This record gives sequence, structure tokens and C-alpha cells, in this order.
Amino acid sequence: MNIGLIGLGGVGRAFIQLLEMKKEEFGNLRIVFLLNSNSGIIDCDGIELNDVLEYLKENKDLSRYKGGFSKWNLDEVIKASNADCLVELTPTNKETGEPALSYIRCGMEIGLHVVTGNKGPILIDYKGLKQLAKEKGVSLGIGATTGGALPSIAGGEYGLRGSRILGVRGVLNGTTNYILSLMEEEGLDYLEALSMAQREGIAEANPKMDVEGFDTAIKMLIISNTMLNQDITLDEVEIEGITGIGIGDIEEAKMVGKRIKLMGETYYDGDRLKIRVHPKLIDKDSIFYNVMGKNKGVEYITDTLGEVAILGGASNVLGAAASVLRDILNIRRW
Amino acid sequence: MNIGLIGLGGVGRAFIQLLEMKKEEFGNLRIVFLLNSNSGIIDCDGIELNDVLEYLKENKDLSRYKGGFSKWNLDEVIKASNADCLVELTPTNKETGEPALSYIRCGMEIGLHVVTGNKGPILIDYKGLKQLAKEKGVSLGIGATTGGALPSIAGGEYGLRGSRILGVRGVLNGTTNYILSLMEEEGLDYLEALSMAQREGIAEANPKMDVEGFDTAIKMLIISNTMLNQDITLDEVEIEGITGIGIGDIEEAKMVGKRIKLMGETYYDGDRLKIRVHPKLIDKDSIFYNVMGKNKGVEYITDTLGEVAILGGASNVLGAAASVLRDILNIRRW
Repeated sequence: MNIGLIGLGGVGRAFIQLLEMKKEEFGNLRIVFLLNSNSGIIDCDGIELNDVLEYLKENKDLSRYKGGFSKWNLDEVIKASNADCLVELTPTNKETGEPALSYIRCGMEIGLHVVTGNKGPILIDYKGLKQLAKEKGVSLGIGATTGGALPSIAGGEYGLRGSRILGVRGVLNGTTNYILSLMEEEGLDYLEALSMAQREGIAEANPKMDVEGFDTAIKMLIISNTMLNQDITLDEVEIEGITGIGIGDIEEAKMVGKRIKLMGETYYDGDRLKIRVHPKLIDKDSIFYNVMGKNKGVEYITDTLGEVAILGGASNVLGAAASVLRDILNIRRW
Repeated sequence: MNIGLIGLGGVGRAFIQLLEMKKEEFGNLRIVFLLNSNSGIIDCDGIELNDVLEYLKENKDLSRYKGGFSKWNLDEVIKASNADCLVELTPTNKETGEPALSYIRCGMEIGLHVVTGNKGPILIDYKGLKQLAKEKGVSLGIGATTGGALPSIAGGEYGLRGSRILGVRGVLNGTTNYILSLMEEEGLDYLEALSMAQREGIAEANPKMDVEGFDTAIKMLIISNTMLNQDITLDEVEIEGITGIGIGDIEEAKMVGKRIKLMGETYYDGDRLKIRVHPKLIDKDSIFYNVMGKNKGVEYITDTLGEVAILGGASNVLGAAASVLRDILNIRRW
């Protein structure tokens, strides 16, 4: 399989490292082009990954790499290469999905499978992308958008096939779970825990997406739309983050043997499927009770297979890259 | 897809019920023959499931059903039908694997995919069956052998693809987990808890396979041989059951905030993979701590995806039947 990779941020570079690390096992996965915002390289025989990783340590601009170029047009790059799978890992824009949305469409139009770790385009037009994939007879892998290494979608899709999903529960945001764990374990107030998480590089300088619940909402939305074949939009999701949680709430929960977690819940209200994200009291006998720190988990409630939970997964860029590889290999399988 | 079903015990009948229940969704899955130990029916247009379920409520002998026959030979039945998938759910024999082993081989030889819930043949000759499947270009689904509804193999196979599995942990036997939970929650001694589980139909009259750890050992063996591509045999597994656990041990564990669970562990000892089953003290922050009652769980330790646990799944014959359906649908997918 010949892979074209667009986007050389943390996960993109980790993906190259991963392929280099696993080259004996997956040597038939070649990267035939690499693109970042304003430069790129193509090599139909497969780019020498070790060389390019060395180069990327010191440089961002690929145009000075052997055979590199500056401006590019994705359509032309794909046609000049022999890629059959596009890995799209450009920065996320949750309002427009661009430029990732156009890249994904372009890849599919030409007949490439696409694997993305980008929530933006999936949020904006998952239905359209699925439709396009179907028309073109290609696959769309989105596992890395919903919890990185956690096989929330791959595990659910194959592990629950044939059952009807009646509901979903998820602790899907590592940052807020880490902050809440710090509050409980270290006795810190919210702002202290947040700033500690920021100092440790776990929370972002602007933590809004995480702490106000949007990241969880987006993941729940993608999981629910994918697994339950729905077309719910973000503005239909009821969202409450953790910014209102004080150390008093944490201690009160602890006193009755419970914990507070930022929980996403997808459930039927009559015939209508709803999604809600809110800080929830978790009983000590819940399987989510021990999902601590940066850990994540999702639980599916089904008609015939019972309740099945998938927990864990490495919370780092290598884990996210391994999630991309998983999608590629599952696509290649059939 | 045309299915031939052999074996009409609890799971076999639940499988027919499941297909009847889901006929609107999976109407293109037809059962074209049904066989039990000394009778059978064939209908290449698809057997009317409701009728046969009604009949089976009162009768075991299919030879008096319309078009039924008594003696049969699987090879001839398959050739007289248009089956492309054999579902093998006959009684388990863990010493010889027979007659299931011959049935599975026969199905594959003729070119049928095979899905089985039978541990016997997988235990005796998984390697040979995999080899035969490969030669014949067919698939072998064995998900129902390792925890019923729990997607221990499907979730692991697709959810962890591309990672290297470094170890496996599992609480895979519902009966022993139920007994240990009863001991803790009701303060019962081992024999009291066992006999309560027997009265409730959870433990068998002869509970040896469960309480002495063999069932867990077999499931760990199948999971490990499948997922880690090994060829370990049952006599290489170190097995200790729960018969030596008294209420004192349970209470001692409780006092230090722990629980005892019958745990299977697959791990590398140097270069060599080992499997061990034993009652283990589980910390209260372990994800297995809250796997209580008949619940099951498996955790994979991987190189790139971190630690991923799959927990839950309905512990009943419908769940086991749904596991068979899952394998069929995953096979049909590609």
C-alpha cells in the first residue's frame, strides 16, 4: 500500500517514526509523498523514512530536501504519485473543517482511501464524506479522531457487529479527566489543577475546548453518528464542562464513595437520540470509576451483546499514530 | 449468505431465535440446513425459522419435521445444500475435539467458512485448522469460544491491529467470578457460594472445569495462540483454581482494599511466552476490580497502543449466539 501523508505536526512525525520502527513487519507500507503547509516531497519508490526524520529534526521546509518542492496542489501531487491511501493530519478547524475537508474530498475523488485524525471535517460533513467514499468505492478511517489509541470505533464496529446500539457512555477527554484526578488525589482546586496540567503540557494554554466539554461532545458526536448511523450536529448536543467544579464538589463525592467525571452520554429519549456531556457522579462500582488520569473509555449498551466497555489506550502522539496505522491495516484487510 | 447450523443446544437454538429476531436487518442470512446428533433438515431456499423454533419447543428429533431425515453425513448434507458458512455448535469434547473437529474440517474442505463456539477443536488443533482455512481460502470464526458476547478476539483483532501484543490479562470465567463475588458480598464460604451458584443454574453440577481454572486456561490459551500467533498447549499452562480460597482470604483482601479474582495472565518470561491462571489479589484501582458477578474482561498490553481493556458482554445464550452472528458478519464484510 502506498501512502501519501499530509500534515507533519506531532502525530504526522510520529506516524513516520512508527512506520520506520515497524518496517520489518509492514515494509509493504510505503510513504510516497509527504506534504506540509508549503512544501513537500514525492518518491514513488517510497521515501527513505530515516533520512527524512533526521532532516525534519532541524528543518520544517521540505523544499530543500532532495527532490523537494515548495508550492503544491494536492490533486497534482496525488496524480504524480502512486498513492492509494491518503493520511490526513493537518491542523484542525472545527468551524469550517478546512483545509482538511477539501484534502479528504480531493483524495477520495481520485480514488484513494483516506485515514484522518482530524475532527474538523468529520464534524462538518461526515455524512457527505461517507457518501463520497461509497460512490468512489473507497474507505474512510476516522479512529484517531475519537480517543487516539483507544479503539472506540474499530473495537466497537467489529466487536459489536450485528447488535443494535441502544446507548453510549464515554469518558473521552484525557485533559479534563487528568484535572479531575489531580483535584481528587492532590486536593487541588480547579484552577490549581488546571495550571498544573498546563505546566505538564497536558492542558493547552487555551484549555476551552477541553474544559468546557467541546472535545468530549465532538468525540461523542462522531462515535454516535458513526456507530448509530445518525446525523446529529454539534449544536444539538447539551454541553456542560468542568469549569464549575470546585474542590468542595470533589470532596463531597468522595465522602459518599463516588467520583466526578466528565461523561458523554448518548441515549434515546423516546424515538429521538440525544447526546449530553456533563460532570457526573460515578459510583464506585462503575467500570468508569477506575478510569483515572489521562485514561479514556467508552461503553456501548447493546440489544444482544449486553454492555461492552473499551478502556485505555496510550495517551500520546505515538498512540494516535498507531491508531492511524490500525485504520490503514483494517482497510487493507478487505 | 447461506448458513448450515450443526448443533441444537442452548446456543444453537438461541442463534435461530436471533436470526428470526433480526430478519428485517439480516434477511439475507438464511439457514439452509439444521442438524442435530441424529436428524436434520435441508431447505436451499432458507428454512422457515419461526416454524422450526415452534417445532423444537416440543421435539428434538427433526426427522419428523417436513422434509426431515434421520441419519446424515455432513459431507453429503453440505453438498446437497447451497451453504457457504457452517456454524458448528455441537457439544464440546476437550480431549479429542470430536466430533466437532471433523465437522469443521469437512466444512472447510468443501470451501465453507466456519464459525464455532466450541473450545474443543480449537484447543486440539487450532494451528491445523488455521492452516486448512488458509489453503481453502475460507475464514474461521472462534469469537464465541473465548467469553461469549465479550468481543475478546474481534475487538482485539481489529482494535489492536498494527500493534504488538506484549501480554494479556483476563477474568474470563463468569462462574468463578460469580462465586468469588458472592463470597465477598454475602460473606459466604466457598462451598456455600458454589452451591448457591449451582442452585441458580450458574455453576454446573460438576463444576470442576470452572472452579479448577481449566475454562479460564483454555480461553487464555485460545486468545493467546490466536492474537499472539503462538502454539502453546494446555499442559504448558500453569493452572490454579479457586477451590483453595476461603472466606478468610476474601476478608483479608477486603481489609487491605483488594479483591481476589481468578486471573489469567499471558506474559513473556525472557523470549518465552507463558500462561498462568491463579487467584490474584486485585488492587482497587485496577480496571478488573469492578468486573463483578458473571462479568468478564480482557486486557491487552501492547507496544504502541498502550493497555487496552475490553469488559462486559451479556453472559447468556443469546449473547453467545450474538457472538456467532458477529463473526459471520465480520467474515462477510470482506
